[in-house]
Amino acid sequence: MTSVDRWQLPDGIEEVLPAQAATVERLRRRLLDLFRAWGYELVIPPLVEFTDSLLIGLGQDLDLLTFKLTDQLSGRTMGVRADITPQVARIDAHSLAPEGVSRLCYAGSTLHTRPKSLMASRSPIQLGAELYGDDSLAADVEVIRLMLATLDAAQLENTITLDLGHVGIYEAVLASAGLDAELEATIFDCLQRKSVPDLTEALAKADIPEATAELIVGLVDLHGDDSVLADARELFAEHAPEALAAVEALADVATDIRRQRPDINIYFDLAELRGYHYHTGIVFAAYVPGHGQALANGGRYNDVGEVFGRARPATGFATDLKALMALAPVAKAAQGAISMPDSDDPELLAKVEALRADGEIVINTLGGASDARCDRELVGSDEGWMVQNL
Amino acid sequence: MTSVDRWQLPDGIEEVLPAQAATVERLRRRLLDLFRAWGYELVIPPLVEFTDSLLIGLGQDLDLLTFKLTDQLSGRTMGVRADITPQVARIDAHSLAPEGVSRLCYAGSTLHTRPKSLMASRSPIQLGAELYGDDSLAADVEVIRLMLATLDAAQLENTITLDLGHVGIYEAVLASAGLDAELEATIFDCLQRKSVPDLTEALAKADIPEATAELIVGLVDLHGDDSVLADARELFAEHAPEALAAVEALADVATDIRRQRPDINIYFDLAELRGYHYHTGIVFAAYVPGHGQALANGGRYNDVGEVFGRARPATGFATDLKALMALAPVAKAAQGAISMPDSDDPELLAKVEALRADGEIVINTLGGASDARCDRELVGSDEGWMVQNL
Repeated sequence: MTSVDRWQLPDGIEEVLPAQAATVERLRRRLLDLFRAWGYELVIPPLVEFTDSLLIGLGQDLDLLTFKLTDQLSGRTMGVRADITPQVARIDAHSLAPEGVSRLCYAGSTLHTRPKSLMASRSPIQLGAELYGDDSLAADVEVIRLMLATLDAAQLENTITLDLGHVGIYEAVLASAGLDAELEATIFDCLQRKSVPDLTEALAKADIPEATAELIVGLVDLHGDDSVLADARELFAEHAPEALAAVEALADVATDIRRQRPDINIYFDLAELRGYHYHTGIVFAAYVPGHGQALANGGRYNDVGEVFGRARPATGFATDLKALMALAPVAKAAQGAISMPDSDDPELLAKVEALRADGEIVINTLGGASDARCDRELVGSDEGWMVQNL
Repeated sequence: MTSVDRWQLPDGIEEVLPAQAATVERLRRRLLDLFRAWGYELVIPPLVEFTDSLLIGLGQDLDLLTFKLTDQLSGRTMGVRADITPQVARIDAHSLAPEGVSRLCYAGSTLHTRPKSLMASRSPIQLGAELYGDDSLAADVEVIRLMLATLDAAQLENTITLDLGHVGIYEAVLASAGLDAELEATIFDCLQRKSVPDLTEALAKADIPEATAELIVGLVDLHGDDSVLADARELFAEHAPEALAAVEALADVATDIRRQRPDINIYFDLAELRGYHYHTGIVFAAYVPGHGQALANGGRYNDVGEVFGRARPATGFATDLKALMALAPVAKAAQGAISMPDSDDPELLAKVEALRADGEIVINTLGGASDARCDRELVGSDEGWMVQNL
């Protein structure tokens, strides 16, 4: 290939240049500081692991998103992480193995074989927090509140809509149908895509009562405001009473969130399943107007750590720093800098060190012209080195 | 595989757990702030690029270190970056394409197919700074000073030794030999490994004057204190006068560094070539006692940006945050935390928010016991919520 297109980046793979990189870094620090203040301890999981550890039977969609590499030291297959949550679950279950509740957080690049949606990055900077060892709704509520605090700290100017769902509803409804694994996977996929035609077609092939099929198709319409919960109670009381506990859990979580955050729109979506097949309870996502993808999402995923030797209750959320950056307020004009001559004068060097420690940017001329960012310069005088406007 | 070894990580791939992760994060912020104060602007290059952009003919060793992936969107080969410097050179040459001097810095994970040395990580967190558009020794000196300031900021308690070399010496000596490309590559490899037996064997096959062969072997012994420069001047004056300018450049850089940093040991190594074949001038590295690998290294690498459309003078250095972490002073006891009851009382929430904004860690009990890190708790009283010792 010629020099003219060697600079091309693969589709969905971005670089972040100075103005925006400063925003990403500012957000990263602010959010990790927020997590820390809430008691979440930072861990740094590795960029790659054996696929046996990364995928842990979590379903085909995560597998298909994960780039595979052959480890030439061991001959085994490694994956570049497409999601950091399973890594943190491994750290909780095996590396730390604490008694009681643990709170962990992380920030790092992930890689996807294909974009998860039309405009999505294939290399998000995933930042998230996970709470292990507590199966109560209080833990889910804490994580949702932290997710909302995260979006506040990112200074998004839009009203946030909180989507709430519960995987237990799907599970209770499906349990009554007694489908084989393949058909259930097809139905899961149709429901994730909210495709009623595909769903109807798949169910037509299944040997199940018509009422059950109608119930499954009916899930797709169970989304909206609080009236959805009333509709669900009525529907499930007759056909799927095992799903009622999940409906009440959703009502309780909504009440708890509203008590502290009456400003948040809550939207129920009873067919919401999140991705990756690892969720087991409440699932949630935050949206803002004009941004089609969820800005942050998460849910309960109990017992993922079982394959590492310890089943643990777990709930958490994640967001993409690059997506937050795109919505964060534009930074005010870049900070000006101070030009310094290329000199070894100890007084100059002491002055420069003090200015830099004070947050100023001081740039050496290297014997040439001042850097274009400089609006001031260091000038020698009888009274020592002074900062003067350029 | 069974659950007992699903937690295994590949050799040379590490996770960083809370106590050490806090040190890595502290170092990362301190060093990026240092780079910023010196005028270096942050960029975030992507985790993967097409190999055409990542490898740009820089030699086989970087190629062999780089994991390859097939991009299923384009069918082209991508590499997981093994080194960030060529990415930043691309950004300078193409994405920013500034006139005059530019200063860029970065921090991010890299991945190596095999460890670069016996105990090395295969996934260093590379952090570095690059200066483009200035071909003067003053630019090399600035970058070396920033490298030393980086190690100071990491609070290493050991005396630093600065290794200095110059690729121009090897080039001038080899130019006189007129070897074919294959033999020159063999000799480069032997010199990098400082293997005199291999070097002698390789040279025996070459059809070159004995004096030239002796000069090449002699390079291996040209390392040590300032007397090395005197020896080199004598040797090269007779046999390779084109190498003398590089010797004087080394002497000048050493003088400049000593003027501000008389505490640094300087060690000359005239056969030092650094890796990756992209260096073109001064090369340097920082060592501390008891740590076999260089803690930081870099050098001049002019014209790497040529394949992206612009040849630019370039000099820079990089370090590995995980290696610095291992040598950084052990953090004092972890910060204590404050326990809060799971309550919606607005006065409690206001108090908690103020404590967190103040740098305190406040952890919700979720209706259970206090987190083990808590040494204080929030208790309601007639005078409002108070922090009391546990």
